[in-house]
Amino acid sequence: MTEHNAGGQPGHLEVIPLGGMGEIGKNILAYRYGDEILLVDAGLAFPDSHQVGVDLIIPRIDYLQQHAGLIKGWVITHGHEDHIGSFPYILPRLPRIPIYSAKLTLGLLREKLSEFGIKDSDVDLREIEPGERVQVGRAFTVDTFRITHSIPDNMGYVLHTPVGRVVHTGDFKLDAHPADGRTSDLSKVAQAGQDGTLLLISDSTNAERPGTTASESDVARNIEAIVKDARGRVFITTFASNVHRIQNIVTLAERNGRRVAMEGRSMLKYAQVAQAVGHLEFKDPLITAEEMADLQDSQALFVCTGSQGQPMSVLSRLAFGTHAKLALKRGDSVILSSNPIPGNEEAVNLVINRLYELGVDVYYPPTYKVHASGHASQDELATILNLARPKFFLPWHGEPRHQINHAKFAQSLPHPPRRTLIAKNGDIVKLTPDDFRVTGTVPAGGVYVDGLGVGDINDDIILERMGMSQEGVLLLTAVLHPTPHVEVVSRGFVKTNRDLEAQIRRVALEAVETGLREKRRMEDVRDDLYGAVRRFVRKTTGRNPVLIPTIVE
Amino acid sequence: MTEHNAGGQPGHLEVIPLGGMGEIGKNILAYRYGDEILLVDAGLAFPDSHQVGVDLIIPRIDYLQQHAGLIKGWVITHGHEDHIGSFPYILPRLPRIPIYSAKLTLGLLREKLSEFGIKDSDVDLREIEPGERVQVGRAFTVDTFRITHSIPDNMGYVLHTPVGRVVHTGDFKLDAHPADGRTSDLSKVAQAGQDGTLLLISDSTNAERPGTTASESDVARNIEAIVKDARGRVFITTFASNVHRIQNIVTLAERNGRRVAMEGRSMLKYAQVAQAVGHLEFKDPLITAEEMADLQDSQALFVCTGSQGQPMSVLSRLAFGTHAKLALKRGDSVILSSNPIPGNEEAVNLVINRLYELGVDVYYPPTYKVHASGHASQDELATILNLARPKFFLPWHGEPRHQINHAKFAQSLPHPPRRTLIAKNGDIVKLTPDDFRVTGTVPAGGVYVDGLGVGDINDDIILERMGMSQEGVLLLTAVLHPTPHVEVVSRGFVKTNRDLEAQIRRVALEAVETGLREKRRMEDVRDDLYGAVRRFVRKTTGRNPVLIPTIVE
Repeated sequence: MTEHNAGGQPGHLEVIPLGGMGEIGKNILAYRYGDEILLVDAGLAFPDSHQVGVDLIIPRIDYLQQHAGLIKGWVITHGHEDHIGSFPYILPRLPRIPIYSAKLTLGLLREKLSEFGIKDSDVDLREIEPGERVQVGRAFTVDTFRITHSIPDNMGYVLHTPVGRVVHTGDFKLDAHPADGRTSDLSKVAQAGQDGTLLLISDSTNAERPGTTASESDVARNIEAIVKDARGRVFITTFASNVHRIQNIVTLAERNGRRVAMEGRSMLKYAQVAQAVGHLEFKDPLITAEEMADLQDSQALFVCTGSQGQPMSVLSRLAFGTHAKLALKRGDSVILSSNPIPGNEEAVNLVINRLYELGVDVYYPPTYKVHASGHASQDELATILNLARPKFFLPWHGEPRHQINHAKFAQSLPHPPRRTLIAKNGDIVKLTPDDFRVTGTVPAGGVYVDGLGVGDINDDIILERMGMSQEGVLLLTAVLHPTPHVEVVSRGFVKTNRDLEAQIRRVALEAVETGLREKRRMEDVRDDLYGAVRRFVRKTTGRNPVLIPTIVE
Repeated sequence: MTEHNAGGQPGHLEVIPLGGMGEIGKNILAYRYGDEILLVDAGLAFPDSHQVGVDLIIPRIDYLQQHAGLIKGWVITHGHEDHIGSFPYILPRLPRIPIYSAKLTLGLLREKLSEFGIKDSDVDLREIEPGERVQVGRAFTVDTFRITHSIPDNMGYVLHTPVGRVVHTGDFKLDAHPADGRTSDLSKVAQAGQDGTLLLISDSTNAERPGTTASESDVARNIEAIVKDARGRVFITTFASNVHRIQNIVTLAERNGRRVAMEGRSMLKYAQVAQAVGHLEFKDPLITAEEMADLQDSQALFVCTGSQGQPMSVLSRLAFGTHAKLALKRGDSVILSSNPIPGNEEAVNLVINRLYELGVDVYYPPTYKVHASGHASQDELATILNLARPKFFLPWHGEPRHQINHAKFAQSLPHPPRRTLIAKNGDIVKLTPDDFRVTGTVPAGGVYVDGLGVGDINDDIILERMGMSQEGVLLLTAVLHPTPHVEVVSRGFVKTNRDLEAQIRRVALEAVETGLREKRRMEDVRDDLYGAVRRFVRKTTGRNPVLIPTIVE
């Protein structure tokens, strides 16, 4: 069954992922029907270890800027950084657009915008309850539904369009025992399946994992077992945004006669926003680390930042003994209720080793089941696919390995989708009742944010940084007057070695003097200088530092 | 029971780990009794991602150089890089010492030494069979035994000394079905347990893992299932040193009508050495990639380098389409018979994603059980502890987390050691029949090898490299004559921006002119220049590039 637009012409829908397709991070999705655009999310990505010195990455939005007048509304599924983190960078470059989301998500977004000096009156935030229906423009009816994830107020939606229904899960797992008791409402997905789902867009993060992702209640039970046995203080780190987890920790602390202190800026920020909108409840008020000092060790539980081994986080400072107010001691227990995000393994491992060396008891996955992913495993993916029964399928929120395994898994089910596409960021995926294919591309990719700069770092600069970090820098300043001489300065090259420096100076000077004698052009002299020193350094040291020759005439 | 030395005085034994204690890598262990030293292994470590530009790390051997005359012999347990990789760097700095090990280990060591121009006649290599007994000096009787690991010819030993018996497992797992059919011979460990083991030194790598490490035969069975089903070519990557694994792959290829080609320098090197000493057998001779092209796809199996995502390896070049002779295509299967070593996760993930994008079938752990660790899990550690029944225990070959979990696990057994020490590199562990403690330290740590340089990179230089890689470099060359002007050059800073450059030049020039006007000393002018530009750059860009000011008078 197909819904038609006013004129009876179904036309076609374009689905244009600008981020989050073929990667995990910076999710942003555009739907276009005729002269109307609906947007979903605007997240950021964190750099991989080769993107040195980059703080974060936001999506390119050339397409949105070119078609700014067509954007009718923006829906945000939930409040994680990879879904809201780019708004402060993107909103100022677009006209005022109605932004729809649930209470916690908008609370976190407001907090974020205010950090960037963007006032509430500058933006058009419209609060909805998961389950509400929003009309965006003429073409888009967004029928949201509650679905569980590692943060409350998470939504998926059924998008009713003139060409048919799109079911988008958002990020999800199907948690039968979420901390707030509000389970997923899949009735709209089931209804779409009965009425006919044209397209399913579903979360691929854990498509390689068989079975079901553990519930938050399983995690809480395992943490509670450790807390019950602990005789000393307990320190727990987790993702600050995992309000469910933190609620469960607060509840189990209260049940076990422990007061809770929160340490770390982001932990306090999330807790504050979550509490303000009613998603985090304390029977006993939070206390400070100073107040905790008056209690017995067996009455103390700290929730702190540092689940990723970030050097400035509370847990790292505790592990390295550099925290201003707190010091770990034998008898303390530390629970890492988290897994390292790929790329952070070394940093987390370093913290864990330091904790052991301090003689504290350390608990972390997989030995202890004190963390669960927020993303669905295969059994849950099957539930969605079986309910939605989509004609077409777009595995989303994943790298190629996750997308392709999601596609293969869907294909293995008794009622597989008729066609699955593995899309990339920037693809224009054309959708009609009978057609589903990539018909073109729009500009897409990442913009690096570094310090105050947005987009003034590019891959060439990253390559220069990599080169310098591998081999160091060697500066050669040739001064021609009154008599030619060469200054040599290095950073990150080798230990000061007067012999080597003198030799380099001699080789450089020879090149310059030869060039002057032969009355070569200054650029050529500089090239000669460069070449002579490079050859000499490579031969004597086996290294290729970044050489920077300057000639002062 | 205690063995006594000739004079009837037991004296004391010193166990001095110079590497491999509190880390995984660069294993080297010294035993000293009176004026005799026995050494075990001399491995290297690979840098972590913060040790930028470092090729490898070798142990400091100040202690050995200071006591070179006392060294009576060297035993090598097996041929892995973390046990033999430092010999080419260390041997030239010590007198000629008898080195005892098994055929494959010495074969690999010879190959390595010859790459460094060290001739066979320069060293004193003495081949033994695992199971042989070697007398080193007067104090040390080294009674070796065969024990399984991920490379053939692996040995542990019972060291008989005047103060008692030391059982050292070496690296091991207890594989009931090793590729060469030669299982571990634990009778000497059992005998030591009966006669009295004073000290056990045992492999902690997998002390956090419950159960038993999978056998090589399990891995082979799972690989064979994939190869049987594959209709196209099969490419398998694994550690080149895992000769057992490679033998099993060769055998299953032959059994399934596939010819084998090996690709990659290290893969060929290990295969050549292993074949020469009888540890790798082919029914059908190896063929080249060119010869393979004449066969059908279903007859082709490639064993190639690249299990760690190394950019220049065969698998990476196949994944990125830059291999000179081979190109992957739909229908090919790629098996990663390996796990990423910590720190290599991102690189391996990148390769896996590229392989998916090429449309080949990709198999890797944990989804497919195509790899097994070479190190014992808890059940196997228990077997050793229960057989050896040591009085004292030194968990070895592990980071603190592994050592401490090994210690706790030993303590949980019905007959725990009386005392366990968590030692560090450089600790002097004193051992008598009744005493077991750290009594002092010797210099220990790592020496960085970078290019041709050994030890000319230190942590300060690494810090400089890190700084440049995070923020780039800004060079300021102030030329005072005939009129002051400033040249600005940057690398890895921000995109060329004439405005910014002009502003920096102006700020720098102002600082210099003020300094000249006030007739300040040149060092002070340079400091002023540095400070002024740093403040300006931080304020306008939010960045802290490495600033290098030079003044040309």
